[in-house]
Amino acid sequence: MAVSAPTKQSLEELCINSIRFLAIDAVEKANSGHPGLPMGAAPMAFVLWDKFMRFNPKNPKWFNRDRFVLSAGHGCMLQYALLYLTGYRGLELEDLKQFRQWESKTPGHPENFQTEGVEVTTGPLGQGIANAVGLAVAEAHLAAKFNKPDLKIVDHYTYVILGDGCNMEGISGEACSLAGHWGLGKLIAFYDDNHISIDGSTDISFTEDVSKRFESYNWHVLHVENGNTDLDAIAKAIEEAKKVTDKPTLIKVTTTIGFGSPNKANSHDVHGAALGASEVQATRDHLGWNYGPFEVPEDALGHFRKAVDRGAKYEEEWNSLWTRYTAEYSEEAAVLERMMSGKLPDGWDKALPTFKPGEKADATRNQSGACLNAIAGVLPDLIGGSADLAPSNKTLLKSSKDFQKGAYENRNVRFGVREHGMGAICNGIALHGSGLISYGATFLVFTDYMRGAIRLSALSQAGVIWVMTHDSIALGEDGPTHQPIEHIPSLRAIPDLIVLRPADGNETSGAYKVAVEKAKGIGADHPYPSLLALSRQNLPNLEGTSIEGVAKGGYTISDSEGTPDIILIGTGGELYLCAEAAEKLRGQGKKVRVVSMPSCELFDEQDEAYRESVLPKAVKKRLVVEAGSSYGWHRYFGDQGSSISVDRFGASSPGEVALERFGYTADNIAAKAAAL
Amino acid sequence: MAVSAPTKQSLEELCINSIRFLAIDAVEKANSGHPGLPMGAAPMAFVLWDKFMRFNPKNPKWFNRDRFVLSAGHGCMLQYALLYLTGYRGLELEDLKQFRQWESKTPGHPENFQTEGVEVTTGPLGQGIANAVGLAVAEAHLAAKFNKPDLKIVDHYTYVILGDGCNMEGISGEACSLAGHWGLGKLIAFYDDNHISIDGSTDISFTEDVSKRFESYNWHVLHVENGNTDLDAIAKAIEEAKKVTDKPTLIKVTTTIGFGSPNKANSHDVHGAALGASEVQATRDHLGWNYGPFEVPEDALGHFRKAVDRGAKYEEEWNSLWTRYTAEYSEEAAVLERMMSGKLPDGWDKALPTFKPGEKADATRNQSGACLNAIAGVLPDLIGGSADLAPSNKTLLKSSKDFQKGAYENRNVRFGVREHGMGAICNGIALHGSGLISYGATFLVFTDYMRGAIRLSALSQAGVIWVMTHDSIALGEDGPTHQPIEHIPSLRAIPDLIVLRPADGNETSGAYKVAVEKAKGIGADHPYPSLLALSRQNLPNLEGTSIEGVAKGGYTISDSEGTPDIILIGTGGELYLCAEAAEKLRGQGKKVRVVSMPSCELFDEQDEAYRESVLPKAVKKRLVVEAGSSYGWHRYFGDQGSSISVDRFGASSPGEVALERFGYTADNIAAKAAAL
Repeated sequence: MAVSAPTKQSLEELCINSIRFLAIDAVEKANSGHPGLPMGAAPMAFVLWDKFMRFNPKNPKWFNRDRFVLSAGHGCMLQYALLYLTGYRGLELEDLKQFRQWESKTPGHPENFQTEGVEVTTGPLGQGIANAVGLAVAEAHLAAKFNKPDLKIVDHYTYVILGDGCNMEGISGEACSLAGHWGLGKLIAFYDDNHISIDGSTDISFTEDVSKRFESYNWHVLHVENGNTDLDAIAKAIEEAKKVTDKPTLIKVTTTIGFGSPNKANSHDVHGAALGASEVQATRDHLGWNYGPFEVPEDALGHFRKAVDRGAKYEEEWNSLWTRYTAEYSEEAAVLERMMSGKLPDGWDKALPTFKPGEKADATRNQSGACLNAIAGVLPDLIGGSADLAPSNKTLLKSSKDFQKGAYENRNVRFGVREHGMGAICNGIALHGSGLISYGATFLVFTDYMRGAIRLSALSQAGVIWVMTHDSIALGEDGPTHQPIEHIPSLRAIPDLIVLRPADGNETSGAYKVAVEKAKGIGADHPYPSLLALSRQNLPNLEGTSIEGVAKGGYTISDSEGTPDIILIGTGGELYLCAEAAEKLRGQGKKVRVVSMPSCELFDEQDEAYRESVLPKAVKKRLVVEAGSSYGWHRYFGDQGSSISVDRFGASSPGEVALERFGYTADNIAAKAAAL
Repeated sequence: MAVSAPTKQSLEELCINSIRFLAIDAVEKANSGHPGLPMGAAPMAFVLWDKFMRFNPKNPKWFNRDRFVLSAGHGCMLQYALLYLTGYRGLELEDLKQFRQWESKTPGHPENFQTEGVEVTTGPLGQGIANAVGLAVAEAHLAAKFNKPDLKIVDHYTYVILGDGCNMEGISGEACSLAGHWGLGKLIAFYDDNHISIDGSTDISFTEDVSKRFESYNWHVLHVENGNTDLDAIAKAIEEAKKVTDKPTLIKVTTTIGFGSPNKANSHDVHGAALGASEVQATRDHLGWNYGPFEVPEDALGHFRKAVDRGAKYEEEWNSLWTRYTAEYSEEAAVLERMMSGKLPDGWDKALPTFKPGEKADATRNQSGACLNAIAGVLPDLIGGSADLAPSNKTLLKSSKDFQKGAYENRNVRFGVREHGMGAICNGIALHGSGLISYGATFLVFTDYMRGAIRLSALSQAGVIWVMTHDSIALGEDGPTHQPIEHIPSLRAIPDLIVLRPADGNETSGAYKVAVEKAKGIGADHPYPSLLALSRQNLPNLEGTSIEGVAKGGYTISDSEGTPDIILIGTGGELYLCAEAAEKLRGQGKKVRVVSMPSCELFDEQDEAYRESVLPKAVKKRLVVEAGSSYGWHRYFGDQGSSISVDRFGASSPGEVALERFGYTADNIAAKAAAL
């Protein structure tokens, strides 16, 4: 198909084609990537970044910037092209040439930890739009909390581009239903309606009426019928979107995937592979693009780079607002400044409750609730909630009301039964970069529903606290669908996620101390998410447990004199059984050490000498007691040790019956230990 | 609130209240459970089971029964009450009294493997409605395949009750969008619209227009405004639903949760806890129920039990159809009969491709595609597809077209980008009980999106094959969001799931042999799902690998004479590197054994003698090589062994670069092994 090209391009065409060809050329050079989306979505992205979006390329982290999320993360060359063209700090043409190469700033999907200007990590479909809901939640919350009638110190939009794939994923439905419920008017999403996914035309699997669905969620829905060339319509839609302040807006923009490619446009061939040399040339011919690979016309670059001055001006304006704010509202300013700095208030951890051995037995989920409520008073940073299990997860902050439409200053977020959406929203709140610590809660077993988001919290360095209760077969009657078995090991296996399973009140406080500090990245290279596994059932407060012990991951809570004959390693709800069993064994003349291991990850981080002091290599008789799968424990109990584990699905019955049937009694522990 | 009760109840009221009080009494006795849903949904369930549903209580597995799914599984006492009242084989009043007790037939959520008459395992919200879509797919497929104009041998409805919770979950949106796309007219879902979830009124998190959303999915949507007492409206809605044959129907039935409880109805107090003795009495008073706990009025029981004769008649009628069918269409009948019997055709596995060492290197994903295509010819049982990655997952059957509205006889299912929905639909297809083997595919990393369904396939003994490609960092450029690290161990940790990571062509065939036989439960106590982890990159066909070896989970592919100095244990894409490293080491005079370990689960099932023959206890120097997390491997390499693993997130780069950087070269393996 040889079509004569426009001989003279308008400045806007030059700019849009610059995006397109940077994407085409980078994918071609890498011989890998997704040119189709950038080619089709370049016009909407250009209009948005050129006419509407407020950002400062030389300070990508400027606090009040509009947030941009490419939920269709495979189209990342669109974003890298825009970052380069608008003059973002640290992203040069050379970086685009290193697209998808080892340690480059331009990886195969957008990674916030790799590239300045990328807000969140996308690629797994649907996460980005849900992260964007979280970013908009953060903005709404901070605005409600800190803004003054005359001083809007927090005031920005969150823009997203999402595709058919994102819209097919359940997670996007969950998050968008919430966004509509909350009426997040400053969330504006572009739906790149190109009718193509990897399997071909969306006709084969996606014929629902997306606009109507978003209307059912209470969104404001617009349609740009010609997203390929009608730039005015795109601009007008954005203007209309901004006018509606009590609903999020979906702008459905009908485009042609791979626009400009004479033989591959509007087909899945252009989705996920380089065009190939001859089609690249054909596209150049078709679009009248007489520039070489990675060559950007001066006019276009000059125009794009105006963003640098514009951005500096935006930030200056905001800085003067901020100066006024600090003068007029010094107290609030001090709080916000501390939050933005990533620091914690001095002595915040003094608020954590402490317990004495023998004090009233309680479930660690209750102690978790006590911790959350205690630190909420000193940490305005905290915001979160549960996926419709607040009374069970004990996550409600008594000092706050519900975060709702028009009541964004509140901190109790009601996520409904939407675990995956909750997860990605929490990630978005944390990655807003304003010091907020988000928390999300459900039953431990339902981490299965939100694992995509939990993994991304770890990968994208989001300082989230995952509050997971009902952490073993001891939850009882709800049965095997609700009883976690393999979940704790499965979560421990995720890199950079700190899993904590506290055994009592002091360890629960210790877990929160770790989780809050990790969420801020204190004492670490960057923020880390933590996941707390908490009991439904009551547990005694033990001798020897401590807040400081938890920070080391594993530590001795009781010992016999001299080298122990045997080490009992317990976690969470089973530690007290180990303590009881140890007493029995000591009564039989055995030398027994009891080690609490609330976090394998933290223990592994300790130096060799410390680890040896807790688990001496010479002591080979080791018994691990955890009401869950044995998977992964061999590493700690070794070739001559063993474990009391649940290596099958659970069963519906009262919790104490289940524990007994599966061997979680002090007598059985003592017997198994003695038998080693 | 003391309200005078009706003095004389109609037969229908007696029946409905019998359901309610069996639920109330069972929950009360267990002091645990969810009375609210059964109390509110009893009328719709009664009308459905009494007037419409075709089933045979004395043969719960009668092939052509209507399928019923309680997607709101927490309300299981509703289903148990109906099973008992209608006279289901093997469920007595005593069983209801054992509600939620150890090994009872009435566990805390419906479990198909525990209770006859329960089709699928529900509880985790949203799974049931998605399973129901799978059941309806199975029906549509078998009907299109086997029915004759004069002989509709497959002809039943699938009915579901789902609640607000199910409707909030993304998985239900994914599956229902597909059901609308496919126009599954024999799927009829009751949405128990009671406005209450655990956190309270749905006003706090769920204000979307559900009916409109289902319309956007292309469903036929009806509304029964008074689901508490308007039985005629319920019946009429079901009739209307059955008239619309080209769309699934959602009947929104507005009800009062805990209907009849004077102080707790319409509140979340009645959702998930026993009413308590005084409220139970108040409810008895309020509903004029003068019967004792677990007492069912004779009139009601007599009426319900008519289902026994009715059911026998349905089955007899069908049996005569079947007799005609076997006579007139003996060939088709033989196929269907073989499928229903759970057997495989003799010698089916001869269709699996075999390979010679040195034959053209290929990716195991391609070999998987070859296996699927090869066995599709001999196994009409096979139906499935990919979540929009068919060209990458290599799952298309060349001999078939797409399963689409009006083309249900086809076997290539296009799930769109809906992993979790796909998973639960595959489970539903497998649990239709007609011998179908379903398969679902995506990238291995996206098992995170569908883990809820994968776990349930294992728990509910669904013979599904999960086809997971791009199984390591070797997938390359897509980067860490797409590179599985912890996924293989996380999946191995799930009980009753067979994880297989074949190393080459013969092992891929071996994996399919295992997976197909396990899907049918051949040589096992029941069907098991399998998960295949397959490479994107080409791998050589190796000396020593075999179909038979895979069945043992781990086996020696090459050895030196005498007791080895060292054992290299490899899986999947890294086995050939072990083979190369072994040659190097042997060249240095070392005695080296190479063990292929495609499935730890299968290896663990072998007897002690076999395991010792492969991994002799005396050989302590063992090196595991797998391009993923080391988590769980210590058990096999032991205190003196080691592994070459990826214990961090991956990175975007060409696959071969990533492999090299992470140490996956024969040289590095040889060096690490020598260093042991």
